[in-house]
Amino acid sequence: MNAAPVVGIIMGSTSDWPTMEHAARVLRDFGVAWEAEVVSAHRTPDKLVSYAETARGRGLKCIIAGAGGAAHLPGMTAAITDLPVLGVPVESKALQGVDSLLSIVQMPAGIPTATFAIGKAGSTNAALFAVAMLANENPGLAEKLAEFRKNQTATVKAAALPPLDPID
Amino acid sequence: MNAAPVVGIIMGSTSDWPTMEHAARVLRDFGVAWEAEVVSAHRTPDKLVSYAETARGRGLKCIIAGAGGAAHLPGMTAAITDLPVLGVPVESKALQGVDSLLSIVQMPAGIPTATFAIGKAGSTNAALFAVAMLANENPGLAEKLAEFRKNQTATVKAAALPPLDPID
Amino acid sequence: MNAAPVVGIIMGSTSDWPTMEHAARVLRDFGVAWEAEVVSAHRTPDKLVSYAETARGRGLKCIIAGAGGAAHLPGMTAAITDLPVLGVPVESKALQGVDSLLSIVQMPAGIPTATFAIGKAGSTNAALFAVAMLANENPGLAEKLAEFRKNQTATVKAAALPPLDPID
Amino acid sequence: MNAAPVVGIIMGSTSDWPTMEHAARVLRDFGVAWEAEVVSAHRTPDKLVSYAETARGRGLKCIIAGAGGAAHLPGMTAAITDLPVLGVPVESKALQGVDSLLSIVQMPAGIPTATFAIGKAGSTNAALFAVAMLANENPGLAEKLAEFRKNQTATVKAAALPPLDPID
Amino acid sequence: MNAAPVVGIIMGSTSDWPTMEHAARVLRDFGVAWEAEVVSAHRTPDKLVSYAETARGRGLKCIIAGAGGAAHLPGMTAAITDLPVLGVPVESKALQGVDSLLSIVQMPAGIPTATFAIGKAGSTNAALFAVAMLANENPGLAEKLAEFRKNQTATVKAAALPPLDPID
Amino acid sequence: MNAAPVVGIIMGSTSDWPTMEHAARVLRDFGVAWEAEVVSAHRTPDKLVSYAETARGRGLKCIIAGAGGAAHLPGMTAAITDLPVLGVPVESKALQGVDSLLSIVQMPAGIPTATFAIGKAGSTNAALFAVAMLANENPGLAEKLAEFRKNQTATVKAAALPPLDPID
Amino acid sequence: MNAAPVVGIIMGSTSDWPTMEHAARVLRDFGVAWEAEVVSAHRTPDKLVSYAETARGRGLKCIIAGAGGAAHLPGMTAAITDLPVLGVPVESKALQGVDSLLSIVQMPAGIPTATFAIGKAGSTNAALFAVAMLANENPGLAEKLAEFRKNQTATVKAAALPPLDPID
Amino acid sequence: MNAAPVVGIIMGSTSDWPTMEHAARVLRDFGVAWEAEVVSAHRTPDKLVSYAETARGRGLKCIIAGAGGAAHLPGMTAAITDLPVLGVPVESKALQGVDSLLSIVQMPAGIPTATFAIGKAGSTNAALFAVAMLANENPGLAEKLAEFRKNQTATVKAAALPPLDPID
Repeated sequence: MNAAPVVGIIMGSTSDWPTMEHAARVLRDFGVAWEAEVVSAHRTPDKLVSYAETARGRGLKCIIAGAGGAAHLPGMTAAITDLPVLGVPVESKALQGVDSLLSIVQMPAGIPTATFAIGKAGSTNAALFAVAMLANENPGLAEKLAEFRKNQTATVKAAALPPLDPID
Repeated sequence: MNAAPVVGIIMGSTSDWPTMEHAARVLRDFGVAWEAEVVSAHRTPDKLVSYAETARGRGLKCIIAGAGGAAHLPGMTAAITDLPVLGVPVESKALQGVDSLLSIVQMPAGIPTATFAIGKAGSTNAALFAVAMLANENPGLAEKLAEFRKNQTATVKAAALPPLDPID
Repeated sequence: MNAAPVVGIIMGSTSDWPTMEHAARVLRDFGVAWEAEVVSAHRTPDKLVSYAETARGRGLKCIIAGAGGAAHLPGMTAAITDLPVLGVPVESKALQGVDSLLSIVQMPAGIPTATFAIGKAGSTNAALFAVAMLANENPGLAEKLAEFRKNQTATVKAAALPPLDPID
Repeated sequence: MNAAPVVGIIMGSTSDWPTMEHAARVLRDFGVAWEAEVVSAHRTPDKLVSYAETARGRGLKCIIAGAGGAAHLPGMTAAITDLPVLGVPVESKALQGVDSLLSIVQMPAGIPTATFAIGKAGSTNAALFAVAMLANENPGLAEKLAEFRKNQTATVKAAALPPLDPID
Repeated sequence: MNAAPVVGIIMGSTSDWPTMEHAARVLRDFGVAWEAEVVSAHRTPDKLVSYAETARGRGLKCIIAGAGGAAHLPGMTAAITDLPVLGVPVESKALQGVDSLLSIVQMPAGIPTATFAIGKAGSTNAALFAVAMLANENPGLAEKLAEFRKNQTATVKAAALPPLDPID
Repeated sequence: MNAAPVVGIIMGSTSDWPTMEHAARVLRDFGVAWEAEVVSAHRTPDKLVSYAETARGRGLKCIIAGAGGAAHLPGMTAAITDLPVLGVPVESKALQGVDSLLSIVQMPAGIPTATFAIGKAGSTNAALFAVAMLANENPGLAEKLAEFRKNQTATVKAAALPPLDPID
Repeated sequence: MNAAPVVGIIMGSTSDWPTMEHAARVLRDFGVAWEAEVVSAHRTPDKLVSYAETARGRGLKCIIAGAGGAAHLPGMTAAITDLPVLGVPVESKALQGVDSLLSIVQMPAGIPTATFAIGKAGSTNAALFAVAMLANENPGLAEKLAEFRKNQTATVKAAALPPLDPID
Repeated sequence: MNAAPVVGIIMGSTSDWPTMEHAARVLRDFGVAWEAEVVSAHRTPDKLVSYAETARGRGLKCIIAGAGGAAHLPGMTAAITDLPVLGVPVESKALQGVDSLLSIVQMPAGIPTATFAIGKAGSTNAALFAVAMLANENPGLAEKLAEFRKNQTATVKAAALPPLDPID
């Protein structure tokens, strides 16, 4: 991570890391410089403001924000910066992420957040989407992405199902 | 409204006023000084910050915040001020306020928002709750509230049901 | 708890205590005198009536009521006293608190209950909200609340994320 | 209605009558003496208590209670009387009766409410269920109920579908 | 169980017994004669028909039917007999009983099923409701029910909450 | 309709016909002989039994059953005949067909119902699915189906979007 | 599996096999030749296209497709072949298969997918439904199906409930 | 639209245009070249494949795909191209877009779709998000976006609430 980060990963709490680290992993694997920080819309609103206000200037191209429950982090980040913001609904305890999903995706016209699936799949995909955005202007990355997709296809094609156990 | 307002009513858009005016009406009827403004968490985040930061200093005792969809206004207001914040989920178009409700009520531990019913009933009740809070320190208001409740009870008790129409 | 309690915590069953003790803990930590009792709307309706009718006279400033399933305790308490009532939806077995939440929050116009998140977060926040209400008239408490919020912010700001494990 | 009523129909508001009159109509058609009153758990809790406490003494065999939103009327009636209580979820505005249904049906062990479908069908069926209960001890009523069911079956059997319009 | 059963308990599968045995237990404790059988609407429709058709003749006063998923047993039983049918939604694996609840409660006008809470609470309450129905014509049972309710109230009143642990 | 019907269309009430006629229309357009009748699982259970028991003998190859609310018709038909049963969830008033859908699709292992979308689309598709089943053994019908699909594709490909209005 | 398969079972991932093997088992037990493969709509779209395009030519009579989450496999298979497609919603992590169910069942008019219950029951039933379709043209299979159903009924009829434990 | 389009807008049916034209309007207003076409995943799968396969080569930087119900268009587009795909859940009739939303957002890890709010707000925001992506490499567009956001903020700040009507 010597290069200046181009993707920021933020989350409301360290307890979101087991979900959000999947985004970090994807970026690392693609060689995209990233940073990750705990920024809570509710508990550190001033940090949220300064993080979002300085994001473009610091060279970020997009921000991946993960949050659960009344998940305001992605939407508030998008309210402050006009960088693309990618929201990841973290699975919540009682409502299993339905609250997180609706709080992130149902933004009013004017302030978009791109929303991904609840939990690990969404975190992974937000990073892959960031890669796809960056790949538009980066042929090397585009090639890596195409390679990744090809490998992914190949892995699924190679998957074998076990035989049925002989006795029912 | 000559007295300095003690209750602030904020909402994300003028389209929320048909819901939120019911709160204003209750406060007016109880003689509680109020103010109402459009403050959008997403479209005017700086106004939200300044509104919330100055609220206590300006004499507000609580803030009623109405919002729909990914309703971040109550929670973000509560993130900035430690005044009591009362959230009203405004009925949304597609999801009828389920998104608004969950976005407001499912706050993480540490930053509370008191949440009321979706729509007009919630707006009315947020104001009645504000009155009840204020009445704790204001015997005149407490008397008015008791009177209001007595009248409400009397009205329900006086309600008569129409006869069944004779022919089925 | 030598001082007369100003906040009453009630719940329908001892099985709600693991949720509701978080409210008690917050009040204790803020030095707010509290009491806690099992009061079941369904199984001890007369106790509910007498508890609610005597609450104001005994010096309570608000009541925190936790209940699960067809959660009638907060609403019925609010029907009998005009003190502020704070409802906490306790997580239920089959429906995970969705029933509790809707039974508490969807009150008709005229009888408000302030509702908080499902489970432990809601219980914690109901108490923090009670503190905020009381802080309006109690500068010492207001200071403690501001201090609590400042510490909370600092804790989040200090949170560090672990490094990614080197091998994917 | 010269005979002393054996079924009480209560509802939280006159606005519930368009739903609840269907119960009244069924009882009238079966010749079961009934009474109907507005009793609000939230706005007239004392009337609820006295209504429920005197119900058995006044000769009621069961109570049909209709309510919407945070529908506490059936459950609180059942908390006070041990007569059979039949709950009808009235369709609510924002949530279309899902809140009403869950608030009525999800009662804790110990205090039962028999719950019927949301709206008019539930109101009709609560009355038919009351008839079925009474018919257990009333051969004349049992005969009427059997007759009603036979006619209902015959009506459905006689129903004819229109032809398809010739041009698609 | 020497007396002829007056309450029939049926369920779609032996796997429903852990839920439905709570109904049996209540009836046993109240000295109400009962029977319990596996009757599947889907897998033994002929048994369902014969069970329901002979129920009144065999002296049953009501039928408690428990089922999960696409829970057709209560409604189909009610379609065949005009005895009161009490439906218990058994908790289902994927949807936790929401499917069971809606399949039982949302009956069309004309064929009522009295529905109770999802799972054990509903099973217990269906039996208590059956007792309440029978108690209308059985003073001894009415007394037992009143006694049960009094004890239940006393137990809740006697419930004590543990102290907070001294260290937070 | 001179040919003996090979597809039976049944529904609980004439009010389901506006949904179910779309199935009839598809079958007519494909030249598949059909019949349609009102059969109510709840109000004409004996007709349901005889309809289902005689279905195979009368030459039906499958049955399309539409129902709303606690929609038991498809599942109970499948319980009695082992012909393929295709269920169509009719849109219900309060819950918009969610109850219908879950009541039809969540069948226990052993008795399948093939379920289609809520409302008109589901009715149309159930008939198209019946055509596809029959087409497996009927080359003429297979050709018609392929033709229908080709035309459908062509129609969508030919669809043109209107221009944006010049003034925003 | 020497005979050419007449039923294809496909699924998006090997992780769906514990659900989908129940379909395979049913087909094996009925002596219906089947094949099973991993085909991912999202990760191997070209394989999906070729699988679906060649299905009829290879002798398949229907395809059972299982998928979870945004479950596009059944619908996309049905978009490419006009063979009957049977969809099985696999239980998903956060939303327990509600997403899978809606993604499969809510197909637009024109392209049907027959949908079955979430999880193992649906997988079993999709295969039983395939058997029922094939049995229409295969008297031997029809006999086996009738036998299976008879045995299933007998098993349920033979099921015995354990006695209540003597001590409550 | 003389410039080669850089954003493709696709939708399953002309009936989606009233939702999707809002995306077109935003792009037009920002001077971003766009194209719009009806492409149905279910009814024109071959067109979907060719559209997606040629998208990058034709100069598209991203694709906005709107669909309702079992909304497979965004996910299948993303399965074929590795361009960024932005999904807009179109409001559906029975389920009001909940099915559309879950079918689009709950994609498995590996194939991302960026999802926006149900209906018009989501369509508008998908386009604004596309603008934000493009603005990363286009200073002129970035300026326009900043201007748009400033104006939007100013408009909300200028919004005035009407006075309460004098008579309640």
